[in-house]
Amino acid sequence: MNGSARQADVDSIAVQDGRIAALGVPDDASAVDTIDADGRVLMPGLVDCHTHVLYAGHRMDEHTRKLEGASYEEIARAGGGILSTVNSVRAADEEQLVQESLPRVRALLKEGVTTLEVKSGYGLDTASELKMLRAIRHLDRESPIRISPTFLGAHSIPKDRGREAYMEELLRETLPEVVKQGLADTCDIYVEKIAFTVADMERLFAQAAEAGLRLRAHTDQLSNMGATRRAAELGALSCDHLEYTEAEDIRAMAEHGTAAVILPGAFYFLRETKKPPIAGFREAGIPMAVSTDINPGSSPVVSLQAAMHMAAIFFGMTAEEILLGVTQHAARAMGEGEERGSIEIGKWADLTLWDMPAPEFLIYQLGGIRPDIVFAGGQAA
Amino acid sequence: MNGSARQADVDSIAVQDGRIAALGVPDDASAVDTIDADGRVLMPGLVDCHTHVLYAGHRMDEHTRKLEGASYEEIARAGGGILSTVNSVRAADEEQLVQESLPRVRALLKEGVTTLEVKSGYGLDTASELKMLRAIRHLDRESPIRISPTFLGAHSIPKDRGREAYMEELLRETLPEVVKQGLADTCDIYVEKIAFTVADMERLFAQAAEAGLRLRAHTDQLSNMGATRRAAELGALSCDHLEYTEAEDIRAMAEHGTAAVILPGAFYFLRETKKPPIAGFREAGIPMAVSTDINPGSSPVVSLQAAMHMAAIFFGMTAEEILLGVTQHAARAMGEGEERGSIEIGKWADLTLWDMPAPEFLIYQLGGIRPDIVFAGGQAA
Ligand SMILES: [Zn+2]
Ligand SMILES: [Zn+2]
Repeated sequence: MNGSARQADVDSIAVQDGRIAALGVPDDASAVDTIDADGRVLMPGLVDCHTHVLYAGHRMDEHTRKLEGASYEEIARAGGGILSTVNSVRAADEEQLVQESLPRVRALLKEGVTTLEVKSGYGLDTASELKMLRAIRHLDRESPIRISPTFLGAHSIPKDRGREAYMEELLRETLPEVVKQGLADTCDIYVEKIAFTVADMERLFAQAAEAGLRLRAHTDQLSNMGATRRAAELGALSCDHLEYTEAEDIRAMAEHGTAAVILPGAFYFLRETKKPPIAGFREAGIPMAVSTDINPGSSPVVSLQAAMHMAAIFFGMTAEEILLGVTQHAARAMGEGEERGSIEIGKWADLTLWDMPAPEFLIYQLGGIRPDIVFAGGQAA
Repeated sequence: MNGSARQADVDSIAVQDGRIAALGVPDDASAVDTIDADGRVLMPGLVDCHTHVLYAGHRMDEHTRKLEGASYEEIARAGGGILSTVNSVRAADEEQLVQESLPRVRALLKEGVTTLEVKSGYGLDTASELKMLRAIRHLDRESPIRISPTFLGAHSIPKDRGREAYMEELLRETLPEVVKQGLADTCDIYVEKIAFTVADMERLFAQAAEAGLRLRAHTDQLSNMGATRRAAELGALSCDHLEYTEAEDIRAMAEHGTAAVILPGAFYFLRETKKPPIAGFREAGIPMAVSTDINPGSSPVVSLQAAMHMAAIFFGMTAEEILLGVTQHAARAMGEGEERGSIEIGKWADLTLWDMPAPEFLIYQLGGIRPDIVFAGGQAA
């Protein structure tokens, strides 16, 4: 590839075996294929580091009824909420999960996303969680996007068991099987009053770390239970949501190098008002990532560009912070920082080429911006 | 065309000479081309009834600097604000205006938009306003979308003249020339403390109505000057923005059949908190339209689907209200209600075919939804 490599401040990039082989290659270097960037903006492929994009069905009717004034109770009685998605996912086979999710993954690819994290967590029993993780692997094979699977068995408490019984199943049966079959890169948990406790996280993380999984946690979305500081101490790569995060949590994140994953889509869709402490993260030098949190209940926002735009409007993140938040910092938050997220020699050649004035244009204009070319691992996708 | 015509509750639609010739055509009717809707959702083409999508340049740097904490004063000193767009538009020729705006119009078409209103108002002198209107006609010829041009000379007060002197120029020179050359369907004005007065609107509307132009007004965006009730009395098709609209205005709109145009993109981008009185419009039976207000300063939101989604989240409009607001009510607000905006015999065959569960899906999921086929005037666009 030959042209203006804005992000890398070089004139050209050489790609070999899917990876970046050289920056600033001389013009007379021999090459099999050459692509002229022709003054366009070259950026790393975008990284969406927190999604629940694999699911069956949708929750359109729930949203429609809410807008018509139905109460949460009425919606729950009509079978709405996360358990309706759990039912759809349990009823679907692996192939159906893949086919229903592929259009969403393709939409992200068209926006320039080349790396994607996808979580399980709508199975809530061993067989269904394993099915979801196999479907995520399947989705990875079907799409040029690099997809990293995360085991989020501890997403919600199933209706048919209590929290403690379900935690026992996760620790004794599900997690060991996930590890044995090599189905996940990362282990995640949703710590919240309506879900799991800090003590649950401690037990899960101990076992997952022992098995070599990376650790991440959903924390402080609706309340502060001290989960962020504890997750940081336990070596979590990132804490995600963070609306109720306090100074003490930020200190722990800074001390342990934990990334903050900011999810404006859920804030928007749930009409939240409590914002994550961006200024605090900024002052403490915490790497901030921005992600879609795509899910059918609280963030049916199938657009990383929309999440980026909202991170500026709702949270006042700067354009530079957001651009790092969907490249370098997002890759780091999901444990792929050595391999992806920036234009550096040795990293995978995940590159996007855009006909726009500058990368900051993605933070300014919402809609109507698509990369001309997306390369994933050096291949046009 | 043969298939499920959900919106029209018929099995098939026959199109002849660009218009809808019959609903519920028998299966054995002879036809030149037949398209099987195959269970997909058929909807009227979407109508974006309030845009300033024709402009040159952008205001990315202004937004980037604001996010970094620059004050309005600093931005104004650096040459930002609407006058920077006026300078870019004055410096561009007709062809450049068209070429810079076409990608935005194409992005709307890809979302299913088949009818678009576009305003002048960045010229602010006779020659530049006429140039913008010619460019809008040119854009119409270049694109399968039906584009209706609106003369909005009274958009902002130019730096080089006072309000009164500029109004004189508009009334004595610009408007007569616009009428003589047949360059606009509609006349619009921005009534606000920082722009034009209700008395200015009265003079402009009298002359424009006399010349056979349709009337519309930007009212109550930042304050209530009584402009909405007066515009309604004077026969305006719509009043647009309406954040500060009061009960008295709503009564006048109901009495005179004035439509309300809701613009969530500007509310979002300007981080406004004062919302238009949707419940009041609803109770009074005012037809509500939803539009992008695409412009480089306060609504760089090049997505009608995003505006639709935000109308639900920010303003609590129902899915049904929003779907009417981008079809039938939008066409009515721009004076095209007899010709477009619904699937009815005799209207233009502006149709969209979608692979989604129902039209309400557009209000539920943000991003990742594109029509499979767009027909504009019966032609695949
Ligand atoms: Zn999540
Ligand atoms: Zn406007």
